[in-house]
Amino acid sequence: MKKRIVLALGGNALQKQGEVSAEAQKKVANEVGEMVAELAPSYEIVLAHGNGPQVGNILIHEENASTEAAPAMPLETTVAMSQGQIGYWLTQAIDNAFIKRGRTAKVATVVSQVVVSRDDPAFKNPTKPIGQFYTAREALKLAKEKGWTVKEDAGRGWRRVVPSPKPIDIVEKKTISELIADGAIVIAAGGGGIPVYRTKILKRLKGVDAVIDKDYAAEKLAELVKADIFVSVTAVPNACVGFGTPEEKALGKVTVSEVEKYLPEFKAGSMLPKVQAAISFAKKGGTGIITDIDHLKDALKGKAGTIITK
Amino acid sequence: MKKRIVLALGGNALQKQGEVSAEAQKKVANEVGEMVAELAPSYEIVLAHGNGPQVGNILIHEENASTEAAPAMPLETTVAMSQGQIGYWLTQAIDNAFIKRGRTAKVATVVSQVVVSRDDPAFKNPTKPIGQFYTAREALKLAKEKGWTVKEDAGRGWRRVVPSPKPIDIVEKKTISELIADGAIVIAAGGGGIPVYRTKILKRLKGVDAVIDKDYAAEKLAELVKADIFVSVTAVPNACVGFGTPEEKALGKVTVSEVEKYLPEFKAGSMLPKVQAAISFAKKGGTGIITDIDHLKDALKGKAGTIITK
Repeated sequence: MKKRIVLALGGNALQKQGEVSAEAQKKVANEVGEMVAELAPSYEIVLAHGNGPQVGNILIHEENASTEAAPAMPLETTVAMSQGQIGYWLTQAIDNAFIKRGRTAKVATVVSQVVVSRDDPAFKNPTKPIGQFYTAREALKLAKEKGWTVKEDAGRGWRRVVPSPKPIDIVEKKTISELIADGAIVIAAGGGGIPVYRTKILKRLKGVDAVIDKDYAAEKLAELVKADIFVSVTAVPNACVGFGTPEEKALGKVTVSEVEKYLPEFKAGSMLPKVQAAISFAKKGGTGIITDIDHLKDALKGKAGTIITK
Repeated sequence: MKKRIVLALGGNALQKQGEVSAEAQKKVANEVGEMVAELAPSYEIVLAHGNGPQVGNILIHEENASTEAAPAMPLETTVAMSQGQIGYWLTQAIDNAFIKRGRTAKVATVVSQVVVSRDDPAFKNPTKPIGQFYTAREALKLAKEKGWTVKEDAGRGWRRVVPSPKPIDIVEKKTISELIADGAIVIAAGGGGIPVYRTKILKRLKGVDAVIDKDYAAEKLAELVKADIFVSVTAVPNACVGFGTPEEKALGKVTVSEVEKYLPEFKAGSMLPKVQAAISFAKKGGTGIITDIDHLKDALKGKAGTIITK
């Protein structure tokens, strides 16, 4: 029996050295494809990925070139667009890594809706900046016109901020699980998933302008597809305590209770959600790993990375 | 045993009366969702869809708001984006039509690459206009800068034209077939599919800026998933001969050889590809239908629409 792993790739992971063209991002996707082809003989693989820089650029295009005849799409729909975009690049990269090895990959990118609660406190306090920078005047005008929440962003200008609610379910969990059982490599919950909630009375699905943290969404996916291992693939080989100080110490194999002591040390919006996602997964009995692409194979053998278990 | 049907929805089908907002298009998607929920107890359903107006607007946004930091994505990637966008709307619409009926749908939109041949004569003669209109001066400048082919479009201005090669395979055919066998409603080959070809020596997949006719791609999908029935869902209840003349006659049940006599009567880029796709499917032993959404149920019972068999 192959072990089942969910890999959560950072959205910035596809943009190296600020290279933002489709060609450059496809080249980085090819490295992911190579990694997947290497792991595929030994593991069932599900990929989740971020979409920060990609959906940011889609929003900039949609909003700056919006006209009556070609109106800007809302945030939830642009997340769906970024799932198509990045899912395509990753699918083709995996296909080609298999072709290079004389094999045929079976890959499916599944457009994924992730359910959040309309009562999530995040909806009362939008914190996640998205899209382009505006002057104060423009930002306040857009806030009035479109009902946006806008905030001044660290002296760089004004931006729209949106809620970042917690994922509670994935609508496509059954088809994703069946695809894995059929032997497919699945790409799902891209960009944290298209945020949807269930309406109070009719229980219908409805999209909502929000952004779901991709590590939390990927962990939820790992839980729902009953994965054995959840890996947050990031830019550094280990989660570190005392990061950037003389006492910096890389975490190796740790238990949930050990790593929970260090929680205040991790940076919000960066290492903290990765550690929290890995902890959540470990608490349910799985193995939560944080590492970079170069150490992934060794981390899966228990020889590298930060490995969190109950 | 349920019969397996592939429904090809027109890309204009989601934009009624020129309503182009996401909200308006979602409302039309809900009508498709209702239809699918009605048919689902009796049929295995695969949906393919066009993307003309949607990818047109994505391209307009990408190109008009392109900057060095946020460069426009190429056509092949924007097709992938439109698959995410439209696939999400259709998935959610089907989910909600099932929820309304007290059931749970199992739907998967699969990002789909459709293989074309680099030797397809279409690459030597690009004919399909896409994206926005330019002045002659702008168009010729872009042609030089980006290697585009541009043409004057019926007195309305200049546009980029791209090749429209024939689909020869669908990379994701296996995962799509397995999903159908698992009882899922599958949305695939959106917008005619992301056009890719296999490189000569290494046989790798590579995206190419082209547009594949959605009826031909949907028919190829129907063939590959071994569907029983292929339906081109369009704006009129029947294909007509002598369309717009006093001799106008709606075609009902016809054989391939009967309808082939009328081929010169159908409009290229409109009814002709639908009739040709239905003929191709009928020649392989299936039933090819052309009708609108209101007559679909009756057409499947043999009581409406244009029904082509061998």
